[in-house]
Amino acid sequence: MATYQHLRIDTINQNVVQAQYAVRGAVPLRAIQISEELKAGKQFPFETVVNCNIGNPQALRQRPITFLRQVSALCVCPELLDNADLGFDDCVVERARSFLARNPNGMGAYTHSQGYTSVRNEVADFISARDNFPANSDEIFLTDGASPGVKMVLNILCRDDKSGVMIPMPQYPLYSGSLALLGAHAVSYALCEEEGWSVRVEDLQAAYDDAVAKGIDVRSIAVINPGNPTGGVLTEQAIADILEWAYAKNLVVLADEVYQENIYVDTKRFVSFKKVLRTLESQDKCLGLELASFHSISKGFLGECGLRGGYTELTNFTPEIKDQLYKLASINLCPNTLGQLAVGLMVNPPQGDSPAAKVYRTERDSILDSLKSRAARSEAMFNSIEGVSCQPVEGALYAFPKLTLPSKLIEAAEAVGQAPDLFYCMAMLDAIGVCVVPGSGFNQVEGTWHFRTTILPKGSAFDEYLENVPRFHREFMAKYE
Amino acid sequence: MATYQHLRIDTINQNVVQAQYAVRGAVPLRAIQISEELKAGKQFPFETVVNCNIGNPQALRQRPITFLRQVSALCVCPELLDNADLGFDDCVVERARSFLARNPNGMGAYTHSQGYTSVRNEVADFISARDNFPANSDEIFLTDGASPGVKMVLNILCRDDKSGVMIPMPQYPLYSGSLALLGAHAVSYALCEEEGWSVRVEDLQAAYDDAVAKGIDVRSIAVINPGNPTGGVLTEQAIADILEWAYAKNLVVLADEVYQENIYVDTKRFVSFKKVLRTLESQDKCLGLELASFHSISKGFLGECGLRGGYTELTNFTPEIKDQLYKLASINLCPNTLGQLAVGLMVNPPQGDSPAAKVYRTERDSILDSLKSRAARSEAMFNSIEGVSCQPVEGALYAFPKLTLPSKLIEAAEAVGQAPDLFYCMAMLDAIGVCVVPGSGFNQVEGTWHFRTTILPKGSAFDEYLENVPRFHREFMAKYE
Ligand SMILES: Cc1ncc(COP(=O)(O)O)c(C=O)c1O
Ligand SMILES: Cc1ncc(COP(=O)(O)O)c(C=O)c1O
Repeated sequence: MATYQHLRIDTINQNVVQAQYAVRGAVPLRAIQISEELKAGKQFPFETVVNCNIGNPQALRQRPITFLRQVSALCVCPELLDNADLGFDDCVVERARSFLARNPNGMGAYTHSQGYTSVRNEVADFISARDNFPANSDEIFLTDGASPGVKMVLNILCRDDKSGVMIPMPQYPLYSGSLALLGAHAVSYALCEEEGWSVRVEDLQAAYDDAVAKGIDVRSIAVINPGNPTGGVLTEQAIADILEWAYAKNLVVLADEVYQENIYVDTKRFVSFKKVLRTLESQDKCLGLELASFHSISKGFLGECGLRGGYTELTNFTPEIKDQLYKLASINLCPNTLGQLAVGLMVNPPQGDSPAAKVYRTERDSILDSLKSRAARSEAMFNSIEGVSCQPVEGALYAFPKLTLPSKLIEAAEAVGQAPDLFYCMAMLDAIGVCVVPGSGFNQVEGTWHFRTTILPKGSAFDEYLENVPRFHREFMAKYE
Repeated sequence: MATYQHLRIDTINQNVVQAQYAVRGAVPLRAIQISEELKAGKQFPFETVVNCNIGNPQALRQRPITFLRQVSALCVCPELLDNADLGFDDCVVERARSFLARNPNGMGAYTHSQGYTSVRNEVADFISARDNFPANSDEIFLTDGASPGVKMVLNILCRDDKSGVMIPMPQYPLYSGSLALLGAHAVSYALCEEEGWSVRVEDLQAAYDDAVAKGIDVRSIAVINPGNPTGGVLTEQAIADILEWAYAKNLVVLADEVYQENIYVDTKRFVSFKKVLRTLESQDKCLGLELASFHSISKGFLGECGLRGGYTELTNFTPEIKDQLYKLASINLCPNTLGQLAVGLMVNPPQGDSPAAKVYRTERDSILDSLKSRAARSEAMFNSIEGVSCQPVEGALYAFPKLTLPSKLIEAAEAVGQAPDLFYCMAMLDAIGVCVVPGSGFNQVEGTWHFRTTILPKGSAFDEYLENVPRFHREFMAKYE
């Protein structure tokens, strides 16, 4: 009898095998291992691992927003509404009651595949107020974080192995990973590091021409603003330029705006792609350009990564294409209800002078102020190190410093079969317990080396981080002079 | 200047266009419309729509289990733990405290991509106790409901347009839909309706031979037990036969066991594929056969569809393939934390004599007893109608009655371009407001007609349903005699 053949790497889906996801790649895996060894009593030159590999604020002691969690608890367990001794502010109780009144099935039933209508209405109101252009709840899909929204839209765009989507270099690996899974091309356009990681039309055109010359059917362009891993924020003019260029090339635009609340410099403010598009359309430009915009509860000042909530807004998509997206959403039944509720609470915060509203604003400001200061201090720290340079951390949750590495180090890395930036990050982890992600995980201009770190460690952990990184760098470089 | 070309059905991904998802198809869409018209004051021969199209218990007034929601509220909003006047049982408070102690980041941080280790340990303990064979938390992936687990495993199995996965006919459309999205073949094997929708090896072999003759690379077989839409429950012997057959054909087995708590007849009990596999292996049979098993919080007696929680257990997968699944899970970051917590509460219910444990058991028994009675009454109702026959509803949440349709009706349906069963279900919706799904949405042996209905309406709504369906059938048939 023939023996059973197990699945092997070469017999499964090769798109899966090809896909890469560095944010949880080699360095973070080693960090998990070290954490376990620390617990088991093994000695390291540090006491804890500081996880700067992922924008996960609550894993680094950022506390959840009280209003969000109180309303959530009441909606999850409505019997609490009858408890007179709860001590929650009236406006919390009212918000929960009104949610449950509008959604009588509560949290335990599958919802509409696009999500609760009441929450989609709140999202539409938020967008209308933010942009000063109307939004329509029919064109909003609530999702389990922004990730599934991005994947869903990419899924309809990529039709065969000729399809390509333009993505920034460096990029957030959700994009390259999802495109690899779909067997489509990631067409990288370089961000201009010297100009604060800006998007320049000449770089878009160069990447596009190159892809077309290779026979790639370029279908769409994705832009991340504020940028991950770069921390850069686009100007309104840059957005208009991108839209006009994309329109001329007949591309669908994907605007990843999950960091829209995270802007730290006074010279920049967040402007949505939707607003710029509607403004251009009002001037008879870019009429009908298809835009999908993404937002999330994971970032901003909520940092509710674990709850998994987000939304996708479609602009100018035809009803027949929207129906196809609806079908995709239906196959997964519906997004999780707590994440949906939290999206509603994000876009519709408590207003006025109630105690809960005041606490909300205090918590918000304290988180954003602290992030702002950590952004500036991170940038300053990196720029104080010889051989390191860092663009302004204008937004998002990351710094993406550039390393000038001595040739001896590059040779040492090659000798152990590692990219030089991976080699550097592994050494940093082993020396000071700080876990960051090598630039190669995000893609970078060939011959340049970077790493991405978050600005999320808090309090004394942040102070130590600011001290340890330069010390590590000096000592490590000294070995390869 | 060339005008912008919108996406069109023929320019997007054709796999998406081909995919079908009937559970939220034409009849349910019409039902939503009618509901809205009812609200707006339009007159229909009924007062409300009864949604029997989807296994969504809490949308039909099944109440959530108190223990689950109380513990969840405390974990979502830990400040409640300090409230002395909460009135929750100690064992509820203890459970929440121990969850938070084991998971100090709480609910707001991205978790391990496979889910909280503590919950995976609870799942492993549950499986070990259920099957009397060890389970390993490393081989468990927590998921947002069972659906993403199924999709993830299908994603690694399907490598190109020759790949095929055997799925039952009738089936739950997650399978056909996901395979269509992957551009792979759904290889349907007929269930034997006359024998309570059983799986017979001769039918597997016939479907397999047929597919191989067409050049399809058959890679896996999916089995749903208890069955959706059929309500059938497999015997241990039938499971062993399937496993031995699959082993000889070198197939990976997918066991969809989301209805494992929903068994209503004394002659049947739930036996997991994992247990049967391990038993066979202990007899030197099927050694190393790869099995993926799926479970969910959406069904059973919890019915927590909206929270989106589930798990996938891998058996005999090699570490390198597990790593690929881990990478897939990572691209989505992590499953939602409340769903994860709820999976833990499902597999690790309160024990002993605490008040909360007693309430838990009372609630559980009352739901399961009521489902049992509704299963029997549904079946009896259908079998009392001339021209309708229904196999025993041994498990799950559905009846799948067979219709004998007069040729005049079939012609009338064809005249309006509808399949006869769709035509029948639309008429039922219009006449009595009961929304069910035509058998064609699940696939059925050609020339046979069925529909799927849930056993979920409660109380007087269920009584009315039992009266209205036969009345509708008689009156509708009378038109086509
Ligand atoms: C640019 C960007 N987009 C999308 C996401 C996805 O986040 P989520 O799925 O948690 O909303 C992230 C997460 O880090 C991100 O940085
Ligand atoms: C057989 C079967 N499998 C899987 C699922 C998916 O359920 P969920 O994703 O809610 O766990 C369902 C839902 O009805 C089902 O019937």
